[in-house]
Amino acid sequence: MEDKLKQLQTILAEVSDLYAAAGLLGWDQQTYMPPGGAEGRGYQLGTVEALAHQKFTSQEVGKLLDELQPYADQLDPDANEARLIKVTRRSYDKQAKVPAELITEMAQVTAVAHQAWTEARAENNFPKFQPHLQKVVELRCRYAELFAPYDHIYDPLLDDFEPGLKTADVKMIFENLRPQQVAIVRAIAAKPQVEAGFLYQPFDEQKQWDFGVKVISSFGYDWKHGRQDRSAHPFTQSIGGQDVRITTRFNPNYLGTGLFGTMHEAGHALYELDIDPALRRSPLGSGASLAVHESQSRMWENLVGRSLPFWEHFYPQLQQAFPAQLGNVPLSKFYQGINQVHPSFIRVEADEATYNLHIMLRLEIELALIERTLQVKDLPEAWNTRMKEYLGVVPENDAQGVLQDVHWSGGMIGYFSTYALGNLVSAQLWERINLDLPDLPEQIRKGEFSTLLSWLHEKIHCHGAKFEPQELIQRITGSKIDPAAYVRYLRGKYGEIYGI
Amino acid sequence: MEDKLKQLQTILAEVSDLYAAAGLLGWDQQTYMPPGGAEGRGYQLGTVEALAHQKFTSQEVGKLLDELQPYADQLDPDANEARLIKVTRRSYDKQAKVPAELITEMAQVTAVAHQAWTEARAENNFPKFQPHLQKVVELRCRYAELFAPYDHIYDPLLDDFEPGLKTADVKMIFENLRPQQVAIVRAIAAKPQVEAGFLYQPFDEQKQWDFGVKVISSFGYDWKHGRQDRSAHPFTQSIGGQDVRITTRFNPNYLGTGLFGTMHEAGHALYELDIDPALRRSPLGSGASLAVHESQSRMWENLVGRSLPFWEHFYPQLQQAFPAQLGNVPLSKFYQGINQVHPSFIRVEADEATYNLHIMLRLEIELALIERTLQVKDLPEAWNTRMKEYLGVVPENDAQGVLQDVHWSGGMIGYFSTYALGNLVSAQLWERINLDLPDLPEQIRKGEFSTLLSWLHEKIHCHGAKFEPQELIQRITGSKIDPAAYVRYLRGKYGEIYGI
Repeated sequence: MEDKLKQLQTILAEVSDLYAAAGLLGWDQQTYMPPGGAEGRGYQLGTVEALAHQKFTSQEVGKLLDELQPYADQLDPDANEARLIKVTRRSYDKQAKVPAELITEMAQVTAVAHQAWTEARAENNFPKFQPHLQKVVELRCRYAELFAPYDHIYDPLLDDFEPGLKTADVKMIFENLRPQQVAIVRAIAAKPQVEAGFLYQPFDEQKQWDFGVKVISSFGYDWKHGRQDRSAHPFTQSIGGQDVRITTRFNPNYLGTGLFGTMHEAGHALYELDIDPALRRSPLGSGASLAVHESQSRMWENLVGRSLPFWEHFYPQLQQAFPAQLGNVPLSKFYQGINQVHPSFIRVEADEATYNLHIMLRLEIELALIERTLQVKDLPEAWNTRMKEYLGVVPENDAQGVLQDVHWSGGMIGYFSTYALGNLVSAQLWERINLDLPDLPEQIRKGEFSTLLSWLHEKIHCHGAKFEPQELIQRITGSKIDPAAYVRYLRGKYGEIYGI
Repeated sequence: MEDKLKQLQTILAEVSDLYAAAGLLGWDQQTYMPPGGAEGRGYQLGTVEALAHQKFTSQEVGKLLDELQPYADQLDPDANEARLIKVTRRSYDKQAKVPAELITEMAQVTAVAHQAWTEARAENNFPKFQPHLQKVVELRCRYAELFAPYDHIYDPLLDDFEPGLKTADVKMIFENLRPQQVAIVRAIAAKPQVEAGFLYQPFDEQKQWDFGVKVISSFGYDWKHGRQDRSAHPFTQSIGGQDVRITTRFNPNYLGTGLFGTMHEAGHALYELDIDPALRRSPLGSGASLAVHESQSRMWENLVGRSLPFWEHFYPQLQQAFPAQLGNVPLSKFYQGINQVHPSFIRVEADEATYNLHIMLRLEIELALIERTLQVKDLPEAWNTRMKEYLGVVPENDAQGVLQDVHWSGGMIGYFSTYALGNLVSAQLWERINLDLPDLPEQIRKGEFSTLLSWLHEKIHCHGAKFEPQELIQRITGSKIDPAAYVRYLRGKYGEIYGI
């Protein structure tokens, strides 16, 4: 039986290698590839990903999984081998249902749709994107229908990013959260506003870069296994688990973009680099889900990086780097400024109090599209109506509204809610961490993060994808994903800043 | 039949995509990969290359080739389709003989051998490398023996890099060349030497970089399809034909390394970028052979880049970039300096007059190893004896002698002679070009290279790998590879510089 396990592991290792190669192809595409390489890169990515899918869904894998099941049933269910077989079985059953033609068609449609979206956004021309988005929605519906029966047609889409989570779960979480979050935003709006203008000044890019490097080095980001580059859209890319790179975007006239973006991506990278080496080159060798991943990036960005103890340590260094801009801004004002709440059109620029509302809007629209109760042509109206309702603002045009995000053009319907779930999970974990490590604020005040990282390693990182997100979070915090901690966090933080 | 051709082309395109992905993995390994990524990179390259080999040597390809043969026989033998089937057949027949285990074993042995070589060279400790090189030689012998019967056991090794060329051909060429080249070197040694000390001064690296960029941009290197980066060992990497990158190494205290290295690599890149787009994603979509490739890099580096007309145009600009270093060095002295002949231990630093002698020595040693008439333990002595005989110098230690090159540790036995052959071919082509383009020196004097590049495109570049090197060179120059043109070139150039 150990022979068969070895055979399975060998195939899974090769599949992982192919995805690692695809990861590098993607990273390079967004960092260093000369523009003329785009056509060829499309072919290379298509071929490598198709081969990985083909190898993973081969009959050989199916047969090995069948043969290994009795062996797995005898193991400790938490053992790496048992979990490997369980997770692989689940993923195999799902992926084997997807015909290669559908994958190819999706690749072709999204290649064109992405180009159309780029132009449509630049021209503020939703009708230009509309027919392409219709095709994407159609293909995602066809994909979802492969997995019937289901409780909800959106379930298989969500499940790709959050294994085991159901649409009904997310709806319930968001319905619980939304009124509380709207109330907080409204309460803040009724109070005197805080000043953040000093963040919008010229800031030398190299100095922004250097400060970010200093911060994430202190977090524990290991440059022997990582690097930082510039890209138009910041992202983290793992290339086989021992090489996890981040990219950052800097705004020369606003400090927030680079500063918090760097911490955010480092949070993702710290997770990937910290997974048990024994899980590498297998389906267990990456994060548990996108929400768990986002809980890590948001934790370092917000719960650490927008906290007062953090800046008690780092603010003098930041002032030293930018004496002309920040020399006369006291810490208390700086702390308020980086936590300013200001409802806006653009999700990626949203503050902690309004961010989730952007996500809820998107989830509702995605559900309606996939349920076929909303037509693509009616999207702009549906968008703007909800913006008004949740955030009290209406975008001036579709470029700032329904066209702002890249995701749908790439077929990523089912993805958005993981961002909000990540915020909720980060707060749940943070409460637990602060119970386990009562002197954490004091450590952060000294610029010490090793105890925090050790806690994350032991509780989350080391497990890779062994546990589904709900199971993992329940094991750690005692409950599944729940908005209560996040609401408590917002009330505490903004209660203090805005006096609500 | 067109269906079958299409099927074959689809598989070959996917194989090309995999090699392109491997190309990027290799490029990244030498440019940006964090050191901790090395272990994973080995796995990724191994998997991608093994899959490419497996796909290319599949029974399906063999069957399609059989079925397509009658169709190919009816085509114009120079047609792309006919050549595709011919070249693929040849490569298939060869690669299909190689068992996957041998490829894996070679990958494992060379991974360890490369590490041992790195340490052995650093420690000047040949015995440390010796057992690893023995294994490499053993594996290369086993590989060669797969192709018995042959005229010479070295033939299959050489043929990997120079399709169709035989050991006997290269021996004859080198035996013809060696006495003439030795005579030239000795004649030069008997004359008053030229001064080159001004090349060995501090030269700002960014200015070196900028000047190199200016030069190769004027050659026609297209930055939309390429880029330049730094690496320890300069190389050119094509990633699918529309993205061909070069790397350069700079010596802050010697101008020659970066300057001529940049032109050399650009020569390789101009070739790859200039191949008929119809040949992309197929076995025809790269250069004809390593010798033909080297003829291009050496042409731009030496026949163009070390010529007087070239510097009549560029020297004032170089002086402007480095006024303190070169302001008082007249053009005639500069031209002499960059063409200084000086027998030395190190191949990659050798001048045009001595370079080939380094290669001949290596070929003789490789032949003796593969013929099993020389034992690995006796290599240092064999090396030093020939150095004394051909170049009149003996390395002070093995690090500067037999341990200087990386190639053998990577299993590349059969490769070296392509460097010297490339020199010979560059001179053969140059004579033909100057007959076809009588005003070429005048154009070069004006910094105009487009006519030269068009000639190279039409005669060489566009054909990709359609023709074997000897056939290609014969078609263009009327004769196969022949040292006469190179000897004439050396006599003419050094006759003038040294008065021989």
